[in-house]
Amino acid sequence: HSAAPVCCGSIVDELSKLNEDPRVRGVYLHLAPALLTGRVISTLAPEKDVDGYVVILSRFRAGEPRVFCPGIEHLCGPTGVSSEGQTVVLVGADGAVKVALRCLMERRGVVTLNGHKSSESLQEQVCVCVWLSPCVGDTAVGVWLVVGVMGQPNMCVLVSLQNVVLGSCRWLREQQYQDWSLRLLKLQPLNPVPSDIQISRAQTPKSVQQLAQEIGLLPGELEPYGRNKAKVRLSLLERLQAQPDGNLVLVAGITPTPLGEGKSTVTIGLVQALSAHLKLNSFACLRQPSQGPTFGVKGGAAGGGYAQVIPMEEFNLHLTGDIHAITAANNLVAAAIDARMLHEATQSDKALFNRLVPSVNGVRKFSPIQISRLRRLGLSTTEPASLTAEEVRAFVRLDLDPSKLTWQRVVDTNDRFLRKITVGQASTEKGHSRETGFDIAVASEIMAILALADGLGDMRVRLARMVVGTSRSGQPITAEDLGVSGALAVLMKDAIKPTLMQTLEGTPVFVHAGPFANIAHGNSSVLADKLALKLVGRDGFVVTEAGFGADIGMEKFFSIKCRASGLRPSAVVLVATVRALKMHGGGPNVSAGSPLPREYIDENLSLVTGGCHSNLRKQIEIAHLFGVPVVVALNVFKTDTAAEIALVCRLALECGARAAVPCHHWALGGRGSVELARAVKEASAAPSHFQFLYETEMPIVEKIRTIAQKVYGADDIALSPQAEAEIQTYEQQGYRSLPICMAKTHLSLSHMPDKKGAPTGFTLPIRTVRASIGAGFIYPLVGTMSTMPGLPTRPCFYDIDLDPVTEEITGLF
Amino acid sequence: HSAAPVCCGSIVDELSKLNEDPRVRGVYLHLAPALLTGRVISTLAPEKDVDGYVVILSRFRAGEPRVFCPGIEHLCGPTGVSSEGQTVVLVGADGAVKVALRCLMERRGVVTLNGHKSSESLQEQVCVCVWLSPCVGDTAVGVWLVVGVMGQPNMCVLVSLQNVVLGSCRWLREQQYQDWSLRLLKLQPLNPVPSDIQISRAQTPKSVQQLAQEIGLLPGELEPYGRNKAKVRLSLLERLQAQPDGNLVLVAGITPTPLGEGKSTVTIGLVQALSAHLKLNSFACLRQPSQGPTFGVKGGAAGGGYAQVIPMEEFNLHLTGDIHAITAANNLVAAAIDARMLHEATQSDKALFNRLVPSVNGVRKFSPIQISRLRRLGLSTTEPASLTAEEVRAFVRLDLDPSKLTWQRVVDTNDRFLRKITVGQASTEKGHSRETGFDIAVASEIMAILALADGLGDMRVRLARMVVGTSRSGQPITAEDLGVSGALAVLMKDAIKPTLMQTLEGTPVFVHAGPFANIAHGNSSVLADKLALKLVGRDGFVVTEAGFGADIGMEKFFSIKCRASGLRPSAVVLVATVRALKMHGGGPNVSAGSPLPREYIDENLSLVTGGCHSNLRKQIEIAHLFGVPVVVALNVFKTDTAAEIALVCRLALECGARAAVPCHHWALGGRGSVELARAVKEASAAPSHFQFLYETEMPIVEKIRTIAQKVYGADDIALSPQAEAEIQTYEQQGYRSLPICMAKTHLSLSHMPDKKGAPTGFTLPIRTVRASIGAGFIYPLVGTMSTMPGLPTRPCFYDIDLDPVTEEITGLF
Repeated sequence: HSAAPVCCGSIVDELSKLNEDPRVRGVYLHLAPALLTGRVISTLAPEKDVDGYVVILSRFRAGEPRVFCPGIEHLCGPTGVSSEGQTVVLVGADGAVKVALRCLMERRGVVTLNGHKSSESLQEQVCVCVWLSPCVGDTAVGVWLVVGVMGQPNMCVLVSLQNVVLGSCRWLREQQYQDWSLRLLKLQPLNPVPSDIQISRAQTPKSVQQLAQEIGLLPGELEPYGRNKAKVRLSLLERLQAQPDGNLVLVAGITPTPLGEGKSTVTIGLVQALSAHLKLNSFACLRQPSQGPTFGVKGGAAGGGYAQVIPMEEFNLHLTGDIHAITAANNLVAAAIDARMLHEATQSDKALFNRLVPSVNGVRKFSPIQISRLRRLGLSTTEPASLTAEEVRAFVRLDLDPSKLTWQRVVDTNDRFLRKITVGQASTEKGHSRETGFDIAVASEIMAILALADGLGDMRVRLARMVVGTSRSGQPITAEDLGVSGALAVLMKDAIKPTLMQTLEGTPVFVHAGPFANIAHGNSSVLADKLALKLVGRDGFVVTEAGFGADIGMEKFFSIKCRASGLRPSAVVLVATVRALKMHGGGPNVSAGSPLPREYIDENLSLVTGGCHSNLRKQIEIAHLFGVPVVVALNVFKTDTAAEIALVCRLALECGARAAVPCHHWALGGRGSVELARAVKEASAAPSHFQFLYETEMPIVEKIRTIAQKVYGADDIALSPQAEAEIQTYEQQGYRSLPICMAKTHLSLSHMPDKKGAPTGFTLPIRTVRASIGAGFIYPLVGTMSTMPGLPTRPCFYDIDLDPVTEEITGLF
Repeated sequence: HSAAPVCCGSIVDELSKLNEDPRVRGVYLHLAPALLTGRVISTLAPEKDVDGYVVILSRFRAGEPRVFCPGIEHLCGPTGVSSEGQTVVLVGADGAVKVALRCLMERRGVVTLNGHKSSESLQEQVCVCVWLSPCVGDTAVGVWLVVGVMGQPNMCVLVSLQNVVLGSCRWLREQQYQDWSLRLLKLQPLNPVPSDIQISRAQTPKSVQQLAQEIGLLPGELEPYGRNKAKVRLSLLERLQAQPDGNLVLVAGITPTPLGEGKSTVTIGLVQALSAHLKLNSFACLRQPSQGPTFGVKGGAAGGGYAQVIPMEEFNLHLTGDIHAITAANNLVAAAIDARMLHEATQSDKALFNRLVPSVNGVRKFSPIQISRLRRLGLSTTEPASLTAEEVRAFVRLDLDPSKLTWQRVVDTNDRFLRKITVGQASTEKGHSRETGFDIAVASEIMAILALADGLGDMRVRLARMVVGTSRSGQPITAEDLGVSGALAVLMKDAIKPTLMQTLEGTPVFVHAGPFANIAHGNSSVLADKLALKLVGRDGFVVTEAGFGADIGMEKFFSIKCRASGLRPSAVVLVATVRALKMHGGGPNVSAGSPLPREYIDENLSLVTGGCHSNLRKQIEIAHLFGVPVVVALNVFKTDTAAEIALVCRLALECGARAAVPCHHWALGGRGSVELARAVKEASAAPSHFQFLYETEMPIVEKIRTIAQKVYGADDIALSPQAEAEIQTYEQQGYRSLPICMAKTHLSLSHMPDKKGAPTGFTLPIRTVRASIGAGFIYPLVGTMSTMPGLPTRPCFYDIDLDPVTEEITGLF
């Protein structure tokens, strides 16, 4: 209400009316200081006094670090008078008191705050001074507010603000960690197990607002996208910064068959067991699946059977638009590259400069992003007219070498015909055609950045430093050079917030990011893990997932994600199946679309033994390289026999696992994974001695060799001449200290997909070496990596449809 | 709550507990019939009795038409016993009563309903019989419920359900139209007018839930996407089907300069004036802008100055993901085409058939979409084994002619290098490369379908009949033939719901669909208009916008959108500017990026007169062809003189406009358009005599000629031989009766962009004729239409950035 009453009496009348109006939920007083009398303030009903709430939670954020940070004292003079020229941004009286109370809470002492504020929406500048006496526990006693008009120190009013104190204390309590009051969804598993979409549809999820409230999120921290999913704001990390983290558990797998061994399903089953059956706060952090395979051959990725994220169709389609945002951002870079090359090829330096730095009302000015480019060129000027012809040329010409462009376009569709294409064939592009290609959207470097970014600022920096190609003189050209990185950050500003969903049993799940596990690191996002670790609390569990086998996804989790984020897992769950173990023990070939050979259906203990003694043992050893205890989770299929299950568990322990348990989450939900949950809890409580595999300061070649030898079991590596030259270039360009992200087949510990078990005596060939500078890793290619899947003859979409009346989807699995 | 108590006593205890538990918002009883005693039912507190709510609003919809339709009697025998074999699907006792009450409300008589239900979630089948005595007004008296186990008619309980009656009456009232209680946002326009993003950011929008409540939407009809925008469910149309529509007003423009004349701004200013200043319910229906130009040259499209949709950055970026969904759907079709052609080229009939109709557990089965293809081939079988070799061949081979593919891929980026490309150049595609191209996403036929669809079912049908190319034997091949149309509907199921946002003054806006105005019809969606017409109520106004000049957007609005939807506008607002009128009166060239010549800055009454007597007069006449009154809205710029403004208004009246008023919304918000709002209200109240320009049954050539002569002022049309052949093909394929969607430059009434005013004495050349069969129109191309914009040398993105702390965006305009 911005009505402008002229005296205290009319304000009091107005406030009384507002007090009684049921439509008015709260009043935010914006009055000239002289009108802020005790009578005015005490008239407002306490439940309507929301002054400061909105401010603190949204607009105030800009000033927060300056106020909330420990070094608050230097902002205030010893007598409570603001130091010359320094501004403590305090918005409104109530906000000021809350800030002061917060400092009190954290420091348990006397705090004197002083500040002033200038706001466009206020008619006068207001000086806010708050004196607080010490508080006992949560209750502050004796709070006075002195308000005066700036420059007229005599015009002051002293008011005791009991309502403000009470409201502030309430507000402070709300800001603190809240225990969960999780309402579980009951599962009544059927036998035989129905299709995934049938199971998903039979369970009605809680509204996401309800779920958020149950796990202690504040309403303002949630951005719902429909009824079943919501983005969670990163401000949560600030609010709960004092809260200790829970336990981080990584789910990895042995080397899989081409059919996959159910890591996502184990992840979801485990959190269902932890939360719903052991009553321990837990969160699953999953990767967002690409939409391409959903309509291709793979189907959904929301888990399966009675261990799923629901509604599975919302998980698998669009979600909250993050991949679409990545596609838009990635392709804006691509369009900028080609357009820039065309414009440079067809315009003089002068014409380019006049267009890039246009005269607006007779004035030429560099934009901030152009100044950033000038700095990288070593030019300190900000005055367009001062540039020499040589400097103009350097500024306007990125001079990209068409043969050294590394940036590809992306789509989130399995479109094999876009793997290699020629663009620019229309006459309007004047013959500047060139060969390039599309990747599937999740292979974009921007997806890897999303997964590794620590916040909006960090993402902005990473986007800026993405290298899209090399100039003819050998300089790396970045997104910042193209002038596009601010726009990329704008396109990605919502995608950076993780999406909250729930499992079939109503326990919380974050879905966020889904980088490729070969040319990128294949792990869910750092931010989702960090938010979840705060939310579960000290004794809770966050179960996060790494793509492919442990030799790839887990190694990258430790070497790249843990390094970038400071995250440290307390245990690794290594997923194995009898099927995959038999394959590693010498069983025949397994391939999608073909019937499974008999060896995989009938009991065969010798194949199982072979698999345990080779691949399982090696993958456990890899986890131990990093000093983290391993729990083997045997994902039980209905064809597995009791003897096979017992054998795997026994041999896994012999191979060094801390525990090994069969899991039945697919058929039974969380109840089928209770034993796994207990083992994980026990392993997480054990001391762990996390260590990195290599130091980043080692030469790039040595880092690659370390991974090849210690993780894959290779005798050595063999670099192609091209790879050697590329490594030399990266070291010269200053990228030596980046960690390594191996792009290797996931179907073998070696580079040869048909070598199962734990191959030895091989040399790992490094064909070529690329770099994702924005994401922050070097990725050597071992063989050819497909970054664009295709559609089979009969894609899944033949079965997918929806009922136009009920809006129910059929045919997703 | 699905607890299973064993006797009535324990149920009563449980219910008492639930009554008192503040966390329980409502209880939905799912009990065995024998337990549904009067004591049980009367124990439940009335405010907790939500039985039937959820059911009616979601699950029940499937059965609704059968129950809600007027012909209810034939479902019930005269004695209240269900007729043999007929099922009235009534879910639960309360739902049944509500249905019955609804029938009573509508028919004002005695209704006897009878039905039974079988639900997976119930342990027994329940027979529900409801007798209702006549009701007085809204209040039903005497309702009894008879519940019994199916097949055991003696096991019945008779209960009087007063709570149910009360709850049902309340529910029914809630279902009815609710008057608006719009809380306006105050505007305090500054002078000079700040940038669009500054104005947008200075105003705090209401939460979209609040806005929705104010305009009478039920919470269940809203799907929020964050705080500021929400999708609105189409079920609203059913709920308010008895509610009379408001007035539909179309905003069109005279032939614009390349700079645009501000139709969106007028639209938004007009609803701000109607709602905020004349206190008339009103809704703006706008098109969603493409993201491409936002980063290219055009900037945002959320209006401008003090007539904007806020937050403007959310309007311009991603919105609720509709364009992303279109991109995904469009490109899935493209991937399916190329993959299918490759698979057909490399596999035998038998291999194709075995893959397309695979043996699952020894059984081959056609999917529903494959049966749909069999029907189009004239085959009535559903048994795969029964097909002859010839039929198998016809079924498995779409036999697409690569030279006759009309489907292009799309991206929502200004990427000129994708205009013409060669795809399939990787070795995996085995030499099957071909030339094709990308359009900007809003040029997709799927966008046109979204804008014209009448509901989910209609959209599904239109998607299925999209023609993607022609077989070598000349048959049109559809998305349904590719097996992909169900998946497309699934991808588009959320996009079909319009997005609710608000203007700077807090009045409601629907943003939905944004089809190209040249190769498509360029109008916002039918569904947004229809939802808005119900919401504003009988005396309210829905202001909807048509792209380009009135000769294009308005003509297509009448001929295509009105025809497809049954919508009828009560008035046309024709937007003019002094700048554009001067251009039509003979002023020099106007082009983006160049300074405006002096003629446009200084007063020049003779140029203004020339423009009014040529283009303005002609555009008014075009509207009169359709029998709709015209209000000319002069969008005032600060360089316009009082004499120029007065002259335009006077001449517009002379040219046949019902009214002509200057508008100052850009500088003043709704207050600046009050005069326009009054004129629109008055014009809408006048009798209108809507008529179509042509009958759809006319030959295609005649329809084109009619538009060219009557609308554009051409002497005649000249068809190229190619166009003649194409028209012949469409007529043979049965597409003769589709309306025409002319693809002509918007910069002139003729096909020659530099012919301003109202050209005559020209022949309109028709180069080629294409068809959007799914959207439902034939589009003749007059000249070359660019469907992929490019980036300029200095794209907008140079200025766009965001503050990583406040998350505020800078540089959008």
